[in-house]
Amino acid sequence: MPQLSALGQPEAARLGEAYMAVRARTVALSEGLSDADATVQSMPDASPVKWHLAHTTWFFETFLLAEYLPGYSPFDPDYAYLFNSYYEGAGPRHARPRRGLLTRPRLEEVLAYRAHVDAAMTGLITRASPSARELITLGLYHEEQHQELLLTDILHLFAQNPLKPAYRPGQPLAVDGPGIAPLSWCSFEGGIVEIGASDTGFAFDSERPRHRALLEPFELAHRAVTNGEWMEFIEDGGYRTPGLWLSDGFDHVRRKDWAAPLYWEQKDGQWWSQTLRGFQPVDPDAPVCHVSYYEADAFASWAGARLPREAEWEHAASAQKIAGNLADLDHLRPRPQRGTSAAPTGLFGDTWEWTASAFLPYPGFKPLPGTVGEYNGKFMSGQMVLRGGSCATPEGHIRASYRNFFQPEKRWQFSGLRLARDL
Amino acid sequence: MPQLSALGQPEAARLGEAYMAVRARTVALSEGLSDADATVQSMPDASPVKWHLAHTTWFFETFLLAEYLPGYSPFDPDYAYLFNSYYEGAGPRHARPRRGLLTRPRLEEVLAYRAHVDAAMTGLITRASPSARELITLGLYHEEQHQELLLTDILHLFAQNPLKPAYRPGQPLAVDGPGIAPLSWCSFEGGIVEIGASDTGFAFDSERPRHRALLEPFELAHRAVTNGEWMEFIEDGGYRTPGLWLSDGFDHVRRKDWAAPLYWEQKDGQWWSQTLRGFQPVDPDAPVCHVSYYEADAFASWAGARLPREAEWEHAASAQKIAGNLADLDHLRPRPQRGTSAAPTGLFGDTWEWTASAFLPYPGFKPLPGTVGEYNGKFMSGQMVLRGGSCATPEGHIRASYRNFFQPEKRWQFSGLRLARDL
Amino acid sequence: MPQLSALGQPEAARLGEAYMAVRARTVALSEGLSDADATVQSMPDASPVKWHLAHTTWFFETFLLAEYLPGYSPFDPDYAYLFNSYYEGAGPRHARPRRGLLTRPRLEEVLAYRAHVDAAMTGLITRASPSARELITLGLYHEEQHQELLLTDILHLFAQNPLKPAYRPGQPLAVDGPGIAPLSWCSFEGGIVEIGASDTGFAFDSERPRHRALLEPFELAHRAVTNGEWMEFIEDGGYRTPGLWLSDGFDHVRRKDWAAPLYWEQKDGQWWSQTLRGFQPVDPDAPVCHVSYYEADAFASWAGARLPREAEWEHAASAQKIAGNLADLDHLRPRPQRGTSAAPTGLFGDTWEWTASAFLPYPGFKPLPGTVGEYNGKFMSGQMVLRGGSCATPEGHIRASYRNFFQPEKRWQFSGLRLARDL
Amino acid sequence: MPQLSALGQPEAARLGEAYMAVRARTVALSEGLSDADATVQSMPDASPVKWHLAHTTWFFETFLLAEYLPGYSPFDPDYAYLFNSYYEGAGPRHARPRRGLLTRPRLEEVLAYRAHVDAAMTGLITRASPSARELITLGLYHEEQHQELLLTDILHLFAQNPLKPAYRPGQPLAVDGPGIAPLSWCSFEGGIVEIGASDTGFAFDSERPRHRALLEPFELAHRAVTNGEWMEFIEDGGYRTPGLWLSDGFDHVRRKDWAAPLYWEQKDGQWWSQTLRGFQPVDPDAPVCHVSYYEADAFASWAGARLPREAEWEHAASAQKIAGNLADLDHLRPRPQRGTSAAPTGLFGDTWEWTASAFLPYPGFKPLPGTVGEYNGKFMSGQMVLRGGSCATPEGHIRASYRNFFQPEKRWQFSGLRLARDL
Repeated sequence: MPQLSALGQPEAARLGEAYMAVRARTVALSEGLSDADATVQSMPDASPVKWHLAHTTWFFETFLLAEYLPGYSPFDPDYAYLFNSYYEGAGPRHARPRRGLLTRPRLEEVLAYRAHVDAAMTGLITRASPSARELITLGLYHEEQHQELLLTDILHLFAQNPLKPAYRPGQPLAVDGPGIAPLSWCSFEGGIVEIGASDTGFAFDSERPRHRALLEPFELAHRAVTNGEWMEFIEDGGYRTPGLWLSDGFDHVRRKDWAAPLYWEQKDGQWWSQTLRGFQPVDPDAPVCHVSYYEADAFASWAGARLPREAEWEHAASAQKIAGNLADLDHLRPRPQRGTSAAPTGLFGDTWEWTASAFLPYPGFKPLPGTVGEYNGKFMSGQMVLRGGSCATPEGHIRASYRNFFQPEKRWQFSGLRLARDL
Repeated sequence: MPQLSALGQPEAARLGEAYMAVRARTVALSEGLSDADATVQSMPDASPVKWHLAHTTWFFETFLLAEYLPGYSPFDPDYAYLFNSYYEGAGPRHARPRRGLLTRPRLEEVLAYRAHVDAAMTGLITRASPSARELITLGLYHEEQHQELLLTDILHLFAQNPLKPAYRPGQPLAVDGPGIAPLSWCSFEGGIVEIGASDTGFAFDSERPRHRALLEPFELAHRAVTNGEWMEFIEDGGYRTPGLWLSDGFDHVRRKDWAAPLYWEQKDGQWWSQTLRGFQPVDPDAPVCHVSYYEADAFASWAGARLPREAEWEHAASAQKIAGNLADLDHLRPRPQRGTSAAPTGLFGDTWEWTASAFLPYPGFKPLPGTVGEYNGKFMSGQMVLRGGSCATPEGHIRASYRNFFQPEKRWQFSGLRLARDL
Repeated sequence: MPQLSALGQPEAARLGEAYMAVRARTVALSEGLSDADATVQSMPDASPVKWHLAHTTWFFETFLLAEYLPGYSPFDPDYAYLFNSYYEGAGPRHARPRRGLLTRPRLEEVLAYRAHVDAAMTGLITRASPSARELITLGLYHEEQHQELLLTDILHLFAQNPLKPAYRPGQPLAVDGPGIAPLSWCSFEGGIVEIGASDTGFAFDSERPRHRALLEPFELAHRAVTNGEWMEFIEDGGYRTPGLWLSDGFDHVRRKDWAAPLYWEQKDGQWWSQTLRGFQPVDPDAPVCHVSYYEADAFASWAGARLPREAEWEHAASAQKIAGNLADLDHLRPRPQRGTSAAPTGLFGDTWEWTASAFLPYPGFKPLPGTVGEYNGKFMSGQMVLRGGSCATPEGHIRASYRNFFQPEKRWQFSGLRLARDL
Repeated sequence: MPQLSALGQPEAARLGEAYMAVRARTVALSEGLSDADATVQSMPDASPVKWHLAHTTWFFETFLLAEYLPGYSPFDPDYAYLFNSYYEGAGPRHARPRRGLLTRPRLEEVLAYRAHVDAAMTGLITRASPSARELITLGLYHEEQHQELLLTDILHLFAQNPLKPAYRPGQPLAVDGPGIAPLSWCSFEGGIVEIGASDTGFAFDSERPRHRALLEPFELAHRAVTNGEWMEFIEDGGYRTPGLWLSDGFDHVRRKDWAAPLYWEQKDGQWWSQTLRGFQPVDPDAPVCHVSYYEADAFASWAGARLPREAEWEHAASAQKIAGNLADLDHLRPRPQRGTSAAPTGLFGDTWEWTASAFLPYPGFKPLPGTVGEYNGKFMSGQMVLRGGSCATPEGHIRASYRNFFQPEKRWQFSGLRLARDL
């Protein structure tokens, strides 16, 4: 399968192949789910699987077919309203917290919608203009983002169910693994570095422009924080020590009774966790997952360290090959990062890593023209940057310059952390 | 089909027949619904269809099979937790507003659960003790209540969907009907009357004991208030005139922007409404439906009348045959009450009629013994009594003494009103 | 002082005297309070003392002076807006939960407003028409109601303050009292009785018309439930036993963490309570106070009894002299009802007694004409009736037919209970 | 009066003088306010004046007298609980939204508390150790911050009152002023600059350490955005154009019905605003005030510009003399910035200027040791930086490196904006 990342200024044939591959993968992710599984919305932050399937399709219908394919007839005129996410420029829309009320269209109708749009897109791609090709590429990256969200959202839904259904069959835990190396530190000199995406190749607008950043000397942990280390934090009273926390963070601890990462439960004195592979014992060697920025920051305080800034992270990551426990390996949960090395391991995959940086525009930032300009810029408030992708991120989707972002209290993403400190 | 109402001290064979009939009807009501339709909960007041199917089954499993059938093995031990509604005496339970998160068990598993319990119940019924027979009868009436709720809840769900799906195919409106008679009044002398259910035959505990009540002379409207009359109330500014309203009622009007009954929408200058037969023009001759007690009370003030007290209503109704537009006719929406008569028409069926009476215990009220004693008594606070059944109430379920009850702001039931006044 | 209750069709001189007495008493109740004490609103249910002082004055200015005194010039035209409570017919008004934001006018300005209105009223009273005299009488009873509310609201405010200020100096507890008699029961035959206020003399519209009621034989406890009995209820797990509670009531218990009456606190293993006489040990012999209807109902269930219906209560009380621990004795808290007698003691004073009756219109109820018609009728929803007055009720204000009403969860009034049971 | 800013390593005499001056100024700010004015809390964000008076005193009692003055006897042991703001390390505290319920202690008692602490502090200062002197200096800066908050909070309180009281007598508007210069731009080269406070002299921990920052070339507007410009934004539909807004910002616009800055009201077709000098017409030439970050950001988008980053702002400001419309001039509202100059005018005073920077730790940031370490660090989440001080900021309090911070939706501070753009 041609990975999206290989498509700089894609020519039509390879773009067509990539289109079919990405679109097919979304459908494959929904296999094994019932119509009901695909319909229910477990919280306002999450969306139904069916909605992900339809909204990604709406993107191509609205921004490509309606604009570039003369005579295109929409599959259902109501869908423009039902499946717009947040684009004010694309007209009114169904309210986000009400997405789960749409038992109709049925899953099979949504799949028919996808097929209808895919057929039309196949025709369009072969003769698409450069600007249309750019929009198609954006649409495919957009769809890959929803592939990850589909996984985080179905996990959240299943975690609400006392029956604890598994999304995919469980895999045995390698309980007799070789163990994991103690934390070591990799040092960086700092100075003026360049970060951000260059002008060639695909990148989201928020990754641009590539620009200079000034770094003081720093160190990064050679691997992510593990579940075992998190258990020590819990046992040491981490969740009960206000001095470790940001003020807003400790408010959340108190109001939400946070005492462990999301999905963790104690059973017979042992920690278990709901995963995409079912309800499983927590592996102490694997990176901790489903923690909020507030928790990540408090842990770093407890450990006498801090979170890395995004420029530090990117500087370290841009020297590395993009590889790791990404979604294509189908583990669908973080795995122990066993290596030791002078360079950090596991920067890509396993879990997104919270950084100490707010999601704000880079110097010289310009949103995309038109309605797709709402893609990132309007969310540059109240969110923190995460880097590196996770076990739910498609290979080929992630880059060293990639900026993910969530509010500091969110925990349902595959989010963990890596420590940093000043030299 | 043997109607439940015919079963006083039922002997086993007829009870078995009734059991099968009631149970089969619930399944029939769920036909045509997808797994998703049957799973989603559109608001905390409503429950998913699947939940109704399972909870009514849980009743028999918990109160009959577990108690009276030695060696009975539950279909799934988790269901005791998942499908308890509110019985504190039956252990902990899944929180009501989270019922819609249960995409598993699937609809087909719930139907298998029903079959499993029905098979065991068939064995039990043939040798059931009198007290078990009483509980079975209670369970069947309980199930019939949920049959009505299943209909009100699926209507509410579909009404949230911009696609406006129909539960059952639409029926043409008799637009060229003969019209409806102007309102006339039926007078009653009052005095000491008896109301409440006698000790023989089935009745809910809240209908008992039969007791004396003192009525002053009064009049009842010969038919229910119609949609056409309600439109006059709207046009006369009824929803904008605080002097017509109870204080709590007008607070609701303001906070919820009430300006018409639930489900009404204006389209090209005409009123339309979501019904179980799809999105339909409002028939001005049919009884108004989906109004709250607050609205009913305000309308009565506007009309220079009042709502009947429940003893007045029951006194008038007990002289009448129990017949009307009930669910078995399958109209599934109120229809014009065309008759004129010295006696009120349409007391049974079409819509529940709000009364001016709070739902409180009758003198000498005693709840049922045991956990089923939680059936009615603990809800005797903050609710108003409705009488007469609706187009969604099974025939054989309703009685003159039957007391339904809802909070005064609820509108998703098939609730309307009939005027009364002092003589 | 001429008590209001003596004023049937009051002639001018005695009405003038009553006016001055009632008005002076309100000011006297505010003595010892600072401008700040008189300004703050401790919760939306409560109003600031200053607001009580001003609103009662607004009543006379709006309904009397503006209507009946030609050329009357309002003290401040803004006050019409600031001090309207809820009369929709009297124009827009300052939102209730924002009453406590009015640091201006200052307390002394409000007192000047009172003096201004009193001076004008003195002139009006001498030549008031019968209908004006009726409105003045209503205004005085209205003011007496606010005198009681002023006390309940200042108690609530002081109870929020960790310094626990006393409204009036503490009185020593009669710890060596003679003890209290065990509960005995007084029986009543029932039958058709008359309740409600007759047409002569003052009464609120909700007490009328006098009408027949049918009572089954019943018994009333000879005295109110005591603090000591309530402690037994607590120790027996009353607040943790859902089977004793109305469903809405137990929801409140859980959500609000109710474990004792309002204002009770445990200190060194003993119960203490904030009172108008400061923070004091709870006297086990005194009637329990500051309990909600939900708690009263649950206690009655626990005691194997029930709450009296309001017709039962009134029937028993109308045979009695109106006397008891009312506000004029200045105890300002309930005191042990030490007597034993064939007839109930303590029906008047000490605490309002929750009844099992919803606050609904009597048969034939008609609200007062005009804007004062909003006085009671619009609150006839969602509230329960209390009877008998309390230690904060002015003598001369209470009657056997008097119907007080609050929502079932309210606890900041001086509300207690007396048991009843069927014969 | 010796300004605080002159006190680097203060010797005792001058510190004593500064102490008395700062403390006296707080009391002077409370003059003219009633006990009630000083008690009420108009929203959870705001605190009562009395609380500001007491809490600033608590700071000295808790961190100085209790630690450094042997045998010091607290004025009232309850105050430690009542007047702690948020220091977890200093024990439990009265909940913030309940500060307005404390009608006791009275204003005069709080003033006595101040006198008691001041007397003890006078003794302590003369022999204070260097570390105590540092804490005293911190306490004085802390008190100056509360002086500004006292003004913003009393303005908010008075703005809730329909009587629109004035904190200080109104001043005539210079309606015939010389007008204001059109906006011009001042350009800066960027490069590596130094920002942050150096190690000598007082600064809050969040201003340190001084460190290098890399700036791209940029321009700053020569003056702040004016009310007149803001009216153009309003008239151009700024508040109704989602494309101009951050997503969270437009949510606020919709939910809160924002259509103008806080306190603005239209009266006879003209804009008026509540100010500390009473209800006044809005001066089109004065800097706009009481806008949120969301509004400032949307305005900048509308104007084709952006907000400055805090390093840009500080770099520009550090070349300037610290002077402007600060609180000591007693205007208490922003005034037209009439100058034109190659360098920006009005950077200090008038209004705080929102920057595009999140409030995050500088590289190498270290909180103060001990409980006062909670001063700033724990708020470094979800807030944006403002710079430059306002008409309510004491002279001597502000610095080029000073970082103020508030949540992006807050509007009750004296907050405005200045435009920036890339070169």
